[in-house]
This record gives sequence, structure tokens and C-alpha cells, in this order.
Amino acid sequence: MPARPDCGGPVRHTDHVSTHVIGLLHPGEMGAAVGRCLTKNGHTVLWASEGRSAATAARARAAGVTDAGTVAALAGQAGIILSVCPPLAAADVAWAVHGFRGLYVDANAIAPGTAREVAQMITDAGGRYVDGGIIGLPPAASGSTRLYLSGPDAPTIQALFEGTDLDARIAGPTLTAASAVKMAYGAWTKGTAALILAIRELAREEGVEDTLLAEWALSQPKLEERSTGSARAATAKGWRWVAEMEEIAATMAAAGLPDGFHQAAAEIFRRYPVPARRTAPRSSAKPPSAAPGTPTG
Amino acid sequence: MPARPDCGGPVRHTDHVSTHVIGLLHPGEMGAAVGRCLTKNGHTVLWASEGRSAATAARARAAGVTDAGTVAALAGQAGIILSVCPPLAAADVAWAVHGFRGLYVDANAIAPGTAREVAQMITDAGGRYVDGGIIGLPPAASGSTRLYLSGPDAPTIQALFEGTDLDARIAGPTLTAASAVKMAYGAWTKGTAALILAIRELAREEGVEDTLLAEWALSQPKLEERSTGSARAATAKGWRWVAEMEEIAATMAAAGLPDGFHQAAAEIFRRYPVPARRTAPRSSAKPPSAAPGTPTG
Repeated sequence: MPARPDCGGPVRHTDHVSTHVIGLLHPGEMGAAVGRCLTKNGHTVLWASEGRSAATAARARAAGVTDAGTVAALAGQAGIILSVCPPLAAADVAWAVHGFRGLYVDANAIAPGTAREVAQMITDAGGRYVDGGIIGLPPAASGSTRLYLSGPDAPTIQALFEGTDLDARIAGPTLTAASAVKMAYGAWTKGTAALILAIRELAREEGVEDTLLAEWALSQPKLEERSTGSARAATAKGWRWVAEMEEIAATMAAAGLPDGFHQAAAEIFRRYPVPARRTAPRSSAKPPSAAPGTPTG
Repeated sequence: MPARPDCGGPVRHTDHVSTHVIGLLHPGEMGAAVGRCLTKNGHTVLWASEGRSAATAARARAAGVTDAGTVAALAGQAGIILSVCPPLAAADVAWAVHGFRGLYVDANAIAPGTAREVAQMITDAGGRYVDGGIIGLPPAASGSTRLYLSGPDAPTIQALFEGTDLDARIAGPTLTAASAVKMAYGAWTKGTAALILAIRELAREEGVEDTLLAEWALSQPKLEERSTGSARAATAKGWRWVAEMEEIAATMAAAGLPDGFHQAAAEIFRRYPVPARRTAPRSSAKPPSAAPGTPTG
């Protein structure tokens, strides 16, 4: 295990690269791939195995991430904490490190309003908040993925990823610009996935699916392929997108726009069941491929 | 003026082509172009000038359509009536010819449930109902436009358009299959137009429009052009799509699907004002071109 730096202090490895101790909550598929970018850049990345699955442990090992045991131990050692988790868990993850006084990055698919609540929680306890949003597949090749960042400390986080497969960018001048970009992006990719699934279901219910597909083939030639890609993606992980759609709906409403598109999208994705074997290890050897129509952001 | 046939009876011009007297309610841009297909095929097409605008009269003249004066006179002479009007007017148009005992075609963007109400109104008074739905631009070239038809008498209507720029097709075996196809098709084209407008407005409100456009340029390269096309189309006629979105929402709900996508789309299009000079003549010399992102169905 590398030497433990002071909380928040960079370890100077060379004349121009500062390395940090970064807590990663948690190494899911996306988190582990982000962690791998950080370890490749020489940073020490910690995770907390307590209560996590064997699949998460396997991914963490593959990413070169070090087990700190508990979230409390991780928070005690890290100067930066990076939260990469499902939207519904974002507030819980922040609460679990309550009192952390370093730099806390929430990189989750949450509404700007939710991000402000997380930021408040962190800053009230003496920490600093950076907002984030990841667009793309888990980073495994240059150009595949962007990490949008915002807030006064965003450049510090951006620098961590310099030269990695994760393209870290400043989203805009406001504290929660990164979450806004993520919401606006997913509003299209996943919103249209839900819409096209609803439309095919409508056509089936009305007995006109073949006619619709023939019309699409004529005038909207990519839609059938897109709809089958969306169906495949939603079958695999539609249940995971429900909360993201609700965050987008809240984002729309807060901006004075109708929330119905994404409330409806949440309802569509809610129809896809949670897979039975959620705790089985999943291969992380190969990044998931993006089939046509598959939302990847 | 051509000889008046018996109500509903075809006029036999040659050994193999039957021509009919067809009432057209009303020659808007789409209706006039459909009427032109019928007059080119040798049918007598009537319209009713009473209460209609100078622009409608100009379009009717250009389409070779004959003025019957009133709707009552039209219904008295025609064996077939074709209703091509805004969705909100569909029931009123049917009611205006109450007692008509020929073949009544509703070719409007209405929900199957609304179409069944119109059908009931027509058949209760002794007429026969054919359901229709038009997809595409006003027909001005082969392959530009389909007229979907359903119901037992659909083949009679299909035959009227043989060899014209309007490709008449049987939508399916149920009475309102044609309306279902039209709803499912517009659910995507106009639903996504509304969604992309909402997303750009969201990005503007959140101060991240440039960042979103840069991300789109990278990973969704057609979306910016699509969004500007949708904005142009909605500015020109978004107000006209509100009722169609409400019909689609009703169609979704009747099929046990969420109606929120299209309730939201209606709300977006409701924000586009009705143009001030609605009664000014518009050129019908040139069919509208389909800019990228422009819903044409």
C-alpha cells in the first residue's frame, strides 16, 4: 500500500505531476473503469469492501484499486472522494462520509437540484463540492467518455484525469452545470429509447406493427433498428434508468418545462424487471459494446 | 361542371376506370394536394366555399376542385366525402354532413377512439365509414406521401388514387388501423421534435447550451441540426400540432401506455403562437420542403 499522504494533500511524484489519494464509491462497471484511469495516472485509489459484492471486489482488483475496508476508513485516508453510483444512492453515499473535509465529487446522474442538496450536505460538514456527470461508456478507449465537471474546484479534478481515456471537461460556470449537462444529454438518449419502446408497444396493441415498420422502412429507415437496440438495452438495464428518468423529470420541472416526457419514460423502464442474479459476477474484461439505439450516456 | 351521377354511384368513363363525385372537406394545403390527385385521375372533386378563406379558394382552384357552395350541397351531390382537416375539427366536419348516406373517409390525425366516435356518427345516420391517415408531405411527387386506409370499404377508396402521387395503402384489418398507424408514426416524429425543443430550452435555462451542443457534435452528430429543424417547423406550425399530440396521448392511454410523452409535447407546442396573418394566402405553387428535423408525418 502506498504511503498515506495528509488528508487532501497531493503526493509529489515528479516535478510536474501531483498524485492524490482518492476514495472511490463505488467500483461498479463505470466506477471501476474511472478508477482504472486514476490508478494508471499514478493516483492511489481506495474502495471500501464492507457490504459490497464479490463482483465489485473483482472489478476493484482488476482496476488496481486498494481496499480500505470501510467507508469511514476510506474517508479518513482520502483527500478526494469520487461518488459514482446509481442516482437513488447519491445522497446516501454523501451521507455515509458525513464530516469528510476534503474534495467531494458527485459524478452521478442527478438533477441540479439534487446535486445542490448533496453539495449542501458536504459543505455544511466542512468539505468542498465538485459537481460531475459522466457521458459515454465506461472509459476503455480514448474518446469514449467525458466526465463533465463544475464548481470552483473542478480544475483540480480535471487535472487528475489528464492523458487518460476519460476526457474531463469543465461543463460551465455554475456549481451544478455538470449535472445539467448529464440530465439534458440523457433526456434525449434515454427519453427517446423509452418513447420508441412505447410506440412499438402501441403499434402491437393496435395490430398495426407490420404496417408501422413498413412505413418506417420507407420514411424513417433507422427507426426499426433503433427500436430493437432500445429494447435490448432496456431489457438489460431499463430498471436502472427509472431513477435517472425521475431526476430528469425533476430537472425539467425546475426549469419550467413539462416533466411528462421523462415521467412517462420512467414508467416505461419500470416495466423491465430487475434481473434475478444481480449479485453474480459480470465480466469486466471487455467493455460493453454500443448497439444501434443503445443509450450510452 | 361534369354530369352529376346518382349519389354514391360511379360514373363509368372507360371500360376499366370508375370515376366518382367526391366531396373534399377542406382544401387546406394537404387537402388540396389530395384533391389534385383525385382530379388528375378524372374524378369530380367538390368543395364548399361558404365561410372558407380566399387562400382556401385559391388552393381549390389550383387543384381543379369545383365549388359546390355549401357543405349541404356538397353532401347532396357526392357519393364519397373525404375529410382532411385539423384533428380538433374532425368531429364537427362529420357532424356538418349528418345524414350523408355515402362513403365517408376521415383521413385526419385522430386517435382510434375519436375515429370510432366519428364512425358511429356516420353509420348511425346511414353512411359508411372508412378510416384514414396521411403520412408525408402534401403529395406532389411519387413516393412522398401515403394514405393509410382501413375498414371494409377501404379498397374502394384505395382504388381512387391508383397511379397518383398519393400511395394509398390498407393499414390493417381493424376499422381504425389507419388512425392507429398515423398516431404511432406522429408519436415519434412530432414527439421527438417537442422533446428536443424542451431539451435545448433546458440547456439554455441551465446555462449549458454550448456544452451540450459540443457533446452532441461529438457523440450525437445529427442532433443540433435536428433541433434547429424542429425549432423552425414548430415556429411555423407548432400551434397546429397541439391537438394531434393530445390525440396521440389519448391513443397511448387507451392502449395502457403512459400519455405523458405527448401531453408534454402538447405543452411544448402550445408555447408557439398562432401566426397573426392566418388568413393571408400562402403559396401553393411549391410543396414545402422537408428540412432535417422537420416532422413531415
